[in-house]
Amino acid sequence: SSGSFNAAAKNTAVEVLTAKGCTVEVSDLYAMGFKVSATAEDIKGKVMNADNFCYMKETKLAWEQGKLSDDITKEQSKLAEADLIIFQFPMYWFGVPAILKGWIDRVLTNGFAFSEEKRYSQGIFKDKKAMLSFTTGSLESMFSPTGINGDINVTLWPLQNGTLYYCGFQVLAPQIFWAPASAAAEDRKSMLERWSTRLQGLLEEKGLSFSPWDCFDEGFPFEG
Amino acid sequence: SSGSFNAAAKNTAVEVLTAKGCTVEVSDLYAMGFKVSATAEDIKGKVMNADNFCYMKETKLAWEQGKLSDDITKEQSKLAEADLIIFQFPMYWFGVPAILKGWIDRVLTNGFAFSEEKRYSQGIFKDKKAMLSFTTGSLESMFSPTGINGDINVTLWPLQNGTLYYCGFQVLAPQIFWAPASAAAEDRKSMLERWSTRLQGLLEEKGLSFSPWDCFDEGFPFEG
Repeated sequence: SSGSFNAAAKNTAVEVLTAKGCTVEVSDLYAMGFKVSATAEDIKGKVMNADNFCYMKETKLAWEQGKLSDDITKEQSKLAEADLIIFQFPMYWFGVPAILKGWIDRVLTNGFAFSEEKRYSQGIFKDKKAMLSFTTGSLESMFSPTGINGDINVTLWPLQNGTLYYCGFQVLAPQIFWAPASAAAEDRKSMLERWSTRLQGLLEEKGLSFSPWDCFDEGFPFEG
Repeated sequence: SSGSFNAAAKNTAVEVLTAKGCTVEVSDLYAMGFKVSATAEDIKGKVMNADNFCYMKETKLAWEQGKLSDDITKEQSKLAEADLIIFQFPMYWFGVPAILKGWIDRVLTNGFAFSEEKRYSQGIFKDKKAMLSFTTGSLESMFSPTGINGDINVTLWPLQNGTLYYCGFQVLAPQIFWAPASAAAEDRKSMLERWSTRLQGLLEEKGLSFSPWDCFDEGFPFEG
């Protein structure tokens, strides 16, 4: 919502990046009433197999034939144009809110965002950068390697490796706002100031390191 | 969908557990048209702060006051009655499909499913069992510790530790159906037979091991 810390973090990014000369597009999923569930309605016209509907296969074909629903196509066009994507969200249950998972499930179509040959270091988006920017409810110490929630890098693996790097993105280090709701107003302000400072040099940052595709067998079973 | 492998796995569980004398309730989220996004509409009547709407705080209060929407309350009643919950799903992007993440985000309300004092080994649902049962697109070798997708246990951490164990559930070992879509019909059949066999003794299984609450400092910062 407009008064939230996440909205402030988003506004900071829009302001700093715009001032640096970037063209910034915002997809505010709640405001857009973004459809969340992956269903047969995401495909225009008849599906191949309604009784044993396989979303990935059906949407791959629909993408090839230009039959994906307009809301998906629109997000895919924005993504195709982008050099850097920032996912701004409050962490819900050790992951993204369902509406953002819906964006991931629906927009990152097989064929558009990855293929059997084009994944990880060979991924389709290897010339683009992406990053997570999020707020937590927990304090940083709880997400340390010896903390009760475990290492934050483990929690982020499905998103950073399994989603972003899977599509080839250079994954910038996450911007983590630790428990802003339990912080004093001045601490929240300095969190945003540090974000603003980081944004100044964000486009020059290098991606995190992941094991590249060629560390693994070319064919199955892809073991290192 | 009704002809999918996931439907077959669900039907197998319903049949075997019913035959053992269990009362089985199924929440088929797609068939229910389950609302996915966490929004202010989940609360009956006025919210506390519409401009800086904090879902967790608002729904905690709504739960205390009996003002959560009927679809959430209904799922919470089923959960309160259950001894064992099986989450059956196709893995999408190293996690649950958005519609199931929506169930997690909306049904596991602060107060109902956890509180500051009642989490992890002290969790509200510590007398209940829960487990993940899912299909993958990837082969098992890709999700091995040396595989390109990384150890499946890392990928499951946000769900098994961060969600189920967080609420106190005894988390049974996951039932993983590796890449049934690329398997031969007879292999799919034997996957279901092994599931059927496991289901016979499922209620007697013990939960996986997680670090209990008392391994960590009582107060913040919860470091081990």
